[in-house]
Amino acid sequence: MSRTSALHESLPWIKPSKPPLANAPMLNIATAQLAISVSSAGGIGFLAGGYDVSGLETQLVEAAELTRNLDQSNPARKFYTETGILPLGVGFLNWGADRETAIRILRENRVAAVWLFAPTEMPGELVDWVRDIHELDNANETDTTSSKYKTQIWVQIGTVHEAATAVSTLHPDVLVVQGSDAGGHGLAQSASLITLLPEVHALLNSSAPDQLQESQRPHLLAAGGITTGRTLLASLTLGATGAVMGTRFLASTEAKISTGYRDEILRASDGGVSTVRSTVYDRVRGITGWPGRYDGRGVINRSYLDAVGGMGDEENRRLYKAEMGRGDQGWGPEGRMTTYAGTGVGLVRSVLGAREILEEVWGEVGVVAGELGLK
Amino acid sequence: MSRTSALHESLPWIKPSKPPLANAPMLNIATAQLAISVSSAGGIGFLAGGYDVSGLETQLVEAAELTRNLDQSNPARKFYTETGILPLGVGFLNWGADRETAIRILRENRVAAVWLFAPTEMPGELVDWVRDIHELDNANETDTTSSKYKTQIWVQIGTVHEAATAVSTLHPDVLVVQGSDAGGHGLAQSASLITLLPEVHALLNSSAPDQLQESQRPHLLAAGGITTGRTLLASLTLGATGAVMGTRFLASTEAKISTGYRDEILRASDGGVSTVRSTVYDRVRGITGWPGRYDGRGVINRSYLDAVGGMGDEENRRLYKAEMGRGDQGWGPEGRMTTYAGTGVGLVRSVLGAREILEEVWGEVGVVAGELGLK
Repeated sequence: MSRTSALHESLPWIKPSKPPLANAPMLNIATAQLAISVSSAGGIGFLAGGYDVSGLETQLVEAAELTRNLDQSNPARKFYTETGILPLGVGFLNWGADRETAIRILRENRVAAVWLFAPTEMPGELVDWVRDIHELDNANETDTTSSKYKTQIWVQIGTVHEAATAVSTLHPDVLVVQGSDAGGHGLAQSASLITLLPEVHALLNSSAPDQLQESQRPHLLAAGGITTGRTLLASLTLGATGAVMGTRFLASTEAKISTGYRDEILRASDGGVSTVRSTVYDRVRGITGWPGRYDGRGVINRSYLDAVGGMGDEENRRLYKAEMGRGDQGWGPEGRMTTYAGTGVGLVRSVLGAREILEEVWGEVGVVAGELGLK
Repeated sequence: MSRTSALHESLPWIKPSKPPLANAPMLNIATAQLAISVSSAGGIGFLAGGYDVSGLETQLVEAAELTRNLDQSNPARKFYTETGILPLGVGFLNWGADRETAIRILRENRVAAVWLFAPTEMPGELVDWVRDIHELDNANETDTTSSKYKTQIWVQIGTVHEAATAVSTLHPDVLVVQGSDAGGHGLAQSASLITLLPEVHALLNSSAPDQLQESQRPHLLAAGGITTGRTLLASLTLGATGAVMGTRFLASTEAKISTGYRDEILRASDGGVSTVRSTVYDRVRGITGWPGRYDGRGVINRSYLDAVGGMGDEENRRLYKAEMGRGDQGWGPEGRMTTYAGTGVGLVRSVLGAREILEEVWGEVGVVAGELGLK
C-alpha cells in the first residue's frame, strides 16, 4: 500500500499502517464533534460546510476547542499545536456555498483539507475555489511551521468523465470516487464502485505518453457502500488508497442525528430494495438548488410512495411539514421524515463511538485478509 | 479460500488453486463453443438454455462433440470420459423454459450444473425444477461412476430477501449473487455487489441457532461488474468463492455475437452513464414474458433515447425492425440494435480467446494481491 505514504505525510495524525478512513461531511449531521472524534482516533474527520456556510465559523471554533481538550499525546492535538491547522477537513456543496465567505472563514480557521462536491458543472466554479484555496496556503508561506502543510484539495466525482476533467483542470490531491450505492446525494446515473473505481484507476495509471506522472496522480478514496472491513478491503483491491463512510457514521454516538433517523438506520436491511434514488426527499423539504444531474438515496417511505402514486409536490410537502410535529415517530417506512442512507444500511447493526467504528472496520480488514490466505 | 474445495470436488475439471470463474449463460451468445472453451481452460462453462429450450438438445450434442475433440489430457475431457456428464452447466430462464422438455433433454444429456434464474416468483416454479433435477440424479444411482456427481443446483438472486428464500426452500449448491452493475437482465432495483454480497454472506454465516450448518451453506458466486482481476479479487473480499463474467466474454473469440455488437462493447466506456437499465430493449424486440421486477442494462442507443423522448412502443419497434436490415451498422449510440452490457464495459478493451481471458484475470489477481502487500 505504498501510495498511502503521501496521504499520511500531508495528514500526519492519521493512523499509520491502516488504510485511511474518512467520515463523509454529511449535512447537519457531521459536526465538529464527529469530525474531531474521527480524527482523534486516527481517521480523517470532515465536517459539513454544506451549501450555506453561515454556521461554519461556529463549527470550526468548536472544533478548535475540542482539539485543545484532547489528550496531549493525541496526534491530532499535536498536529494542531504545532501547525495551527485544524486536524480535519471541511466539505462544501459548491452549487450553493458562498465562496468569498467560506474563504474568509478558512483564512482565519485553517483546516487540513477541503472537499469540493456538486458544482453547477464540472469543473465550473471549482476552478475559482481551488485558486483561492491555494492562495490561502501562499499567504502563510512566511510561517515556516504551517507552510509545510498545504490545504489538501479533495474533489468528489461519480463518472470516469468527471474524474478526467477534475484531474486535468483542478489537480486535486484526492479524488473521492462515489459509486451508486452511496446514501444521500450523488449522481442519478452512475456505476457502483465495482466498476467505477477500477476504470478511474486504469485511466490515471495509463502508461500513455500524455498521461500523468506518478506525483500528479491523486489518491482515490472510495465512497458508496463502504460500511465494514470487507467493503474497505474490496475498495483497496479496486484501486483505492482508502475509503469514506457515511451511512456507518449515522449510527455513531457523535453524529448529530434524531433518534428516529438513527433507529431507522438500525432497522432497515436489504438496501438495494429498501432504499431508492429519488429527488422527492429534496422536493418535500423545499430544497431546490441541486444541479439536475443529482438525486439522493434514502430509505423508501410514505413521501416516496405517495409521489410514485401520483401525489403532487405541494400536497406531499404539506404532509411532510405536518409530519415534522411527530418527532421521532416521523421516521420509518410509513413516516415522511427523510432517512438518507446507502444500500449498505443492512450492514449497520449497532451504535458505536467513532473510534470503535474505525477500530472495528480496520480489525475486520485483517481478519478477512487472513481468511483469504492473504497476509 | 478453503470453502472453494467443495466446488472443485463437484466440478473436478476446474483449475485448482484459482478462484472459480464461470461465463454467464448469455442468451443466443453463450453456445456450446464458448461453454466448452471456458471449461477446457479450467473455468465453469455455461450455455444458454434460455426461455425456449427448443435448441438445447442440439447445443448439448455439439458440446459433447467439442469435448470429445479436446486433448486427451484435458481435465474437462477426462471428466466426460469417466462420468458421461458434460463438463458444463446450462442456464434457464425459468419464467419461460418448458420444464418437462428441459428435463427430458437433461436426462439424455447429463450436465454438471443447472443455473436457475427469473422464476415467475421466488421460489415459485423453481421448487418443481429442483425436485425434477434431483430425480435425474437418483435415476442414475445404479451407475456408480456418475452417481458420485450430483447435478449442481445454481440459483441466481438479486436481493437479500431472495437469497434467504432460495436457500431455505431450494437448498442450492451455489447462489449466484447478481449486483446492479450487471449487463442484460436483472432486478430493476438492487444494490451492487459492494453491499449485496457481504449482506448475503453475513446472513448465511450468522451464528444464530436457527441458521445453516456449514455444509448447508451455498457457495456465493459474484455477478455484475466482474471483468478483471481487481474486480474478481474484490468479490472474494466481499465473501464470494468465485465469480461469473458476462460482458467480458462478449469480447471473446468464441462468443456467438455480431461484429457490430462486439465492436460496441470495445468502444463504450464509463458504463455508469453510457449504459442504462430499461425495459425498452425487450419492448422493441417484442419480448414480453419477463416478470415485472426485471429489466435489462444495455448501452444507451436510439431506441432508448426515443422512448425517453416519448415515442410509443409500436413506432419504436417498427424502427427497430427496419434497423435489422443495416447489419453491423445497426449498433452504436445512434443505432437501434440492442447492446446489452454491464457498467464494466469500459474495462473490456480487447477480443481474446476464452482461455486467455481466464488466464489474464487470474494473473491480475496475483499482481494486485502482491501490490497490496498481500501474498
